[in-house]
Amino acid sequence: MRSVITLTTDFGPSSPYVAQMKGVMLSIFREVDIVDISHAIGPQNVQEGAIVLADATPRFPEGTIHVAVVDPGVGTSRRILYAEIGQQRYVAPDNGILSRLTHDRPPSLLIVLENRKYWLPNPSLTFHGRDIMAPVAAHLAIGVAPDDLGPRCALEHIVGLVWRQPLRSADEIVGEVLYIDTFGNLITNIERKDVQSLGNLSSLTVECGGQAIRGIVPTYDAAMPGELIALFDSQERLEIATVRGQAACALKVSTKAAVVVKQE
Amino acid sequence: MRSVITLTTDFGPSSPYVAQMKGVMLSIFREVDIVDISHAIGPQNVQEGAIVLADATPRFPEGTIHVAVVDPGVGTSRRILYAEIGQQRYVAPDNGILSRLTHDRPPSLLIVLENRKYWLPNPSLTFHGRDIMAPVAAHLAIGVAPDDLGPRCALEHIVGLVWRQPLRSADEIVGEVLYIDTFGNLITNIERKDVQSLGNLSSLTVECGGQAIRGIVPTYDAAMPGELIALFDSQERLEIATVRGQAACALKVSTKAAVVVKQE
Amino acid sequence: MRSVITLTTDFGPSSPYVAQMKGVMLSIFREVDIVDISHAIGPQNVQEGAIVLADATPRFPEGTIHVAVVDPGVGTSRRILYAEIGQQRYVAPDNGILSRLTHDRPPSLLIVLENRKYWLPNPSLTFHGRDIMAPVAAHLAIGVAPDDLGPRCALEHIVGLVWRQPLRSADEIVGEVLYIDTFGNLITNIERKDVQSLGNLSSLTVECGGQAIRGIVPTYDAAMPGELIALFDSQERLEIATVRGQAACALKVSTKAAVVVKQE
Repeated sequence: MRSVITLTTDFGPSSPYVAQMKGVMLSIFREVDIVDISHAIGPQNVQEGAIVLADATPRFPEGTIHVAVVDPGVGTSRRILYAEIGQQRYVAPDNGILSRLTHDRPPSLLIVLENRKYWLPNPSLTFHGRDIMAPVAAHLAIGVAPDDLGPRCALEHIVGLVWRQPLRSADEIVGEVLYIDTFGNLITNIERKDVQSLGNLSSLTVECGGQAIRGIVPTYDAAMPGELIALFDSQERLEIATVRGQAACALKVSTKAAVVVKQE
Repeated sequence: MRSVITLTTDFGPSSPYVAQMKGVMLSIFREVDIVDISHAIGPQNVQEGAIVLADATPRFPEGTIHVAVVDPGVGTSRRILYAEIGQQRYVAPDNGILSRLTHDRPPSLLIVLENRKYWLPNPSLTFHGRDIMAPVAAHLAIGVAPDDLGPRCALEHIVGLVWRQPLRSADEIVGEVLYIDTFGNLITNIERKDVQSLGNLSSLTVECGGQAIRGIVPTYDAAMPGELIALFDSQERLEIATVRGQAACALKVSTKAAVVVKQE
Repeated sequence: MRSVITLTTDFGPSSPYVAQMKGVMLSIFREVDIVDISHAIGPQNVQEGAIVLADATPRFPEGTIHVAVVDPGVGTSRRILYAEIGQQRYVAPDNGILSRLTHDRPPSLLIVLENRKYWLPNPSLTFHGRDIMAPVAAHLAIGVAPDDLGPRCALEHIVGLVWRQPLRSADEIVGEVLYIDTFGNLITNIERKDVQSLGNLSSLTVECGGQAIRGIVPTYDAAMPGELIALFDSQERLEIATVRGQAACALKVSTKAAVVVKQE
């Protein structure tokens, strides 16, 4: 059975840099299926990369190798890691991009990529995705043991990012916009289970960008085109959307904007 | 031999939602080749999705499974269908997205997806592409019989869209812009056979957006850069293009704009 | 082992025209892995396509078939070629798109595609990528001999583009911007070996767009966010970048802008 390798980068859709990585991997090992997760991560936006990895990668078959290249520190002393988290395997710079995945549970194995045997010869200082991460992923697909890639490191020695939790009081929750998707929907850091504890969904108010939305509805079709709605997304997070429109434009907000849920 | 599954969505190029669908499919069945048709369908633009499906899917091998997720009614009572049309198989919401394909010929089989055995457990209300359509497509690739997916429905009980035909008189044809491609070329609903019946191609005039184009030429290189031309596209439809430019910008028109072909 | 076919076009990311080509290839031969190099080549920008092909394709396994469709002359008398260059194989219009690859070394085989047996029947005049190049590539993957595709042509009878070399004097090099990548980095036609012969990298000045950059640094992280830097890219070319920004916007320059490197 062929191995699966996924790619997540900030190189831009249709970037030929992605193709260079694919060429390197296929030159080392042909029996892989390469799947693009996203190449539209904002340039150097490690936090966005971390959210996309956490949402998408657990959907893949056990043992899939996920390569993540959002790497503003390329060529510096930042480490590159091999990590096992849940049933998945990762190759990524140690800059926090795995920290949304490790938020819930620690990695079960961390290796620092130091064995140059599995890199391209004469790696550049500006494209470790192609010269280190792609060839290491291809060798993992062949079956190279992770311990051959370099020394283990302590599981807590992984760079983290701050993932703010919503603040909860008796009658309200104050959270923030975590991520804006391609529909302009605002995905928040507030989860369904938190909101449900506040009371009946139809009598709650959600505030963001100076606007108040009454009630939380089940589907995008629950209001007229152009209306703002609040609902739960497919990961059980509170989401603000404009029916058949772009909530991010309508509300003129971006990530980290405050979102308040309260009982009337 | 591996199965082919294609994906057509309005999720935006490089959307991680697409990757979630791919992860779900590969987790159920590894022996598939997944091909992206387009993820740049305009948000909720079922008509555009229908045209893209009708243009692209008949090019694929017999038995290919095409999954189309342009689904503004997700989570509501709209049905999800499995359809066999020509030599191809489709999994899509019943919202008209198959209606350009069924315009010429009826489907040969329609099944309403109701058997939850082939869905993900606890499907969300906001992402049936991932939770229902992707797993059903993967099970079809494994070889699950369509009749196991749910009850058959009458072939005429499929939601349609209105596909306007050009109006024809003795010396002119009045049609409209059907679709604007990534080059800014205007693809019309007027076909070569209709135009040819009007007379010699070089003496016809094509009018759109207040401009008149003399003659219909064979290739994009038949005029100087910047000039407007009319020609037949690779599907034998009348097309208006700007040589090495964007006709949609030059003419300031969008879909449904009137296009008139007439004898001088 | 499955064959690899790559695609490079100016059709735009997520274009359904690309999917039509993939459907044609898979209908002829299923045992191929199709890899997208880029579909974001500027419309009709043969020079950009040539650079992307030269950078990316040598990374692929020996014998990979690379199909390049940047083809403003489609339907005219321009020829379509099969070429062997280095360890790679190419199918492309004869319009200069292979000329960056053949700049260093001549092709080892050139065939003019004339044998209609390997084309789709009734090819359109506007989409030879789908009707000629895709089916020819699929037949090559099956194992059709290149000489079956048409007559050989003399290796020097390939259309070229002018690739300007930097001008070199005792104490300076005058080159130009070759390419702007998706990060807004300016890739120049000046190579590391040329620059090194000028003297110590830290005491050189790089001028572009009316700004002077002191010294050439090793990595993107060598200055503060927002600062302009000069470094060598992963192909050993001089590159101008803005740390965590867009140098092309900051300098308001485009391709062919002059770049001067000199000793203080």
